[in-house]
Amino acid sequence: MECGIVWIMAAEIEFLPQGTVTSPEGFFAGATSAGINKRAGSKLDLAVLFSEAPCLAAALFTTSRLKAAPVLLSQQRLKSQEKIGAVVVNSGCANAYVGAEGLANAAEMAELVGEGIGVPPEDVLVASTGVIGVPLPMEKIRASVDRIILARDGGGELARAIMTTDSFAKETAVRVKAGNSQFTIGGAAKGSGMVHPDLATLLCFITTDAALEKGFLQKALKKAVDASFNMISIDGDTSPNDMVLVMANGLGGSVPHDAFEPALEQLCIYLAKRLAGDGEGATRLIETTVGGAVNLAQARAAARAVVSSSLVKAAVHGADPNWGRIMAAVGRSGAEVKESKFDLYIGQIAVVKSGEPLPFNESAVIKLLKGKEVPLSINLNLGSGSATAWGCDLSPEYVNINSQYMT
Amino acid sequence: MECGIVWIMAAEIEFLPQGTVTSPEGFFAGATSAGINKRAGSKLDLAVLFSEAPCLAAALFTTSRLKAAPVLLSQQRLKSQEKIGAVVVNSGCANAYVGAEGLANAAEMAELVGEGIGVPPEDVLVASTGVIGVPLPMEKIRASVDRIILARDGGGELARAIMTTDSFAKETAVRVKAGNSQFTIGGAAKGSGMVHPDLATLLCFITTDAALEKGFLQKALKKAVDASFNMISIDGDTSPNDMVLVMANGLGGSVPHDAFEPALEQLCIYLAKRLAGDGEGATRLIETTVGGAVNLAQARAAARAVVSSSLVKAAVHGADPNWGRIMAAVGRSGAEVKESKFDLYIGQIAVVKSGEPLPFNESAVIKLLKGKEVPLSINLNLGSGSATAWGCDLSPEYVNINSQYMT
Repeated sequence: MECGIVWIMAAEIEFLPQGTVTSPEGFFAGATSAGINKRAGSKLDLAVLFSEAPCLAAALFTTSRLKAAPVLLSQQRLKSQEKIGAVVVNSGCANAYVGAEGLANAAEMAELVGEGIGVPPEDVLVASTGVIGVPLPMEKIRASVDRIILARDGGGELARAIMTTDSFAKETAVRVKAGNSQFTIGGAAKGSGMVHPDLATLLCFITTDAALEKGFLQKALKKAVDASFNMISIDGDTSPNDMVLVMANGLGGSVPHDAFEPALEQLCIYLAKRLAGDGEGATRLIETTVGGAVNLAQARAAARAVVSSSLVKAAVHGADPNWGRIMAAVGRSGAEVKESKFDLYIGQIAVVKSGEPLPFNESAVIKLLKGKEVPLSINLNLGSGSATAWGCDLSPEYVNINSQYMT
Repeated sequence: MECGIVWIMAAEIEFLPQGTVTSPEGFFAGATSAGINKRAGSKLDLAVLFSEAPCLAAALFTTSRLKAAPVLLSQQRLKSQEKIGAVVVNSGCANAYVGAEGLANAAEMAELVGEGIGVPPEDVLVASTGVIGVPLPMEKIRASVDRIILARDGGGELARAIMTTDSFAKETAVRVKAGNSQFTIGGAAKGSGMVHPDLATLLCFITTDAALEKGFLQKALKKAVDASFNMISIDGDTSPNDMVLVMANGLGGSVPHDAFEPALEQLCIYLAKRLAGDGEGATRLIETTVGGAVNLAQARAAARAVVSSSLVKAAVHGADPNWGRIMAAVGRSGAEVKESKFDLYIGQIAVVKSGEPLPFNESAVIKLLKGKEVPLSINLNLGSGSATAWGCDLSPEYVNINSQYMT
């Protein structure tokens, strides 16, 4: 589905083989290695995304009450500015919880970039990811900004520059044809640690050349994020820096809403699944679908409870067919559940039917649990609510990575 | 505090050196090895707690919507019966999610025990802990019940019989003197995996010879559990079997409420801390105190968020002074927080003051993080709400244990 052509309503959605955040018309990107985090060596860690035409923008930010400085600055600017011209983003340092200098440093990053590319500094947004509580090394950033070369094919550099403990870059683009109109949406995301279903818990930059209205753009983003980034879990934590941003420069002309919405959702789900499967130390993607819930919200709560359960995640890591943990997770999710109606499948193998455990082929189930994608499905048989959530297994490697992140 | 004598109000609370669930007057216990879980070998796994005088009882149960059969049965009996005579409990099998036979098996356990000790079967409660989704081996239980010998000093056997992956038994008793009255409260608990602040997420049996009224007993239990078992976290999961039960046989005569409440709370906190420090794979107890919150509920939410954070737990395991994760956990807890008022201490060392990170002696902080008890304290400086929560570090061993539990 993600590589071929999908028809939704009257729109044809095609995933582009080398799609990036610069696939839509008029977007440029580039990155450099500023040496922000010593440990990262010469890794790309400072990137700029730029549109030759000013963009309408919409965003979702972390729900934390203690937000990082770049989040506070970008929130402010999205409110005060009509259009946005560029984003500057760094990895290796979160610019969070560093006191008053945080906002000043975020503002200076925007200023340095704005001056270099001829965009008013107030029209530049800022994002950061990395270690919390350490000030940005501004002298390194000042010395490096000018080295960034913006290019029409620079999207891949940006996707790599925002990685922290991610093991691969997450990016894609979709081309959409709907009647006479055609447009492209591109996206790049980073996740890995601190990813959980509680709003935009990651960095994601989405670009499009579709011409849209601001109100619609915000609504469409919320809807797409609810079905994608809010349905993944890695470790239950939420970062102070999370941001999902969409920029629309309108160069492709106006497009029907009912073509844009599903395309944006498909793009977000594609990126979300890659984030979920690349959790720190993860070896497997867990895909949990809950059907028959009383409503959509309950289906989502139940599906997320399963992929968030440490015990389910550890059992999947060991390919242990301990399905009771899946049932226990649904039971405590808050969703309405009747034991006598509960069905559970691992892959196509029925494990529980109407609340009664069934004898099953254990070696077949273990084989499924050892696959790259572990499909769990639950039918609550109570209503028509249905949802899918994605997570990863929990491995000893997760603990190793997170015991030594700072020191 | 836990070993000496504590004065609260007009009551003197003394922790008894060898205190158990049979320390209060009139309580008997005993256990046997029924071989319920093959892997456990000859471990004690079936126990009975009995009072020579019928007891008023109060309990808190799991909030899961999919409750295990013994929980359903015990809930029912607490409603229908005036008094309770005994409890039978097994480890090694949860008797959960096994379909219709679950309730029948739980009822038969109560019947077998009731007949053996001369208590009406309806006055016997049932509790189970262990693997989910596997039926109780009833033939083994039938063959073993008669082997249990009830003794006035049998509390220790019960505490050992309810252990699963616990590395030591958790039990204690307090003797309270208040004016002319004296009474004893005993308790035994098991926890380890699946422990989280969401009600009675463990098995805990509390006994007392104090004479109390049922309504007060339930209220006092709720209050004590909110300050103890609801303030600990090991892995964020909630079991279908969780139960905290208190039985009061009245043999010690009536006691003042304001002496019973703090004593019960002290006992529960003692047991809860031992549960938290003995999480699967845990090497350290994390004690987080949040002060200056807008109210008690927010202080509790913030303290629990810290001890529940996988990232904080992993950082403590690695003695990594990554304090930003503590701040991030408070930020997403839902509690009201102002960055400019936030103070954070590790032990007595100030790490953040009024939102500004302070230079600190890193080797001293690392030493604190390597201690058996890691004290974190936060002052939100917004109000007078204050609370303490307990958790443990997250080690690769946790993942190892939980990858192989069933197979």
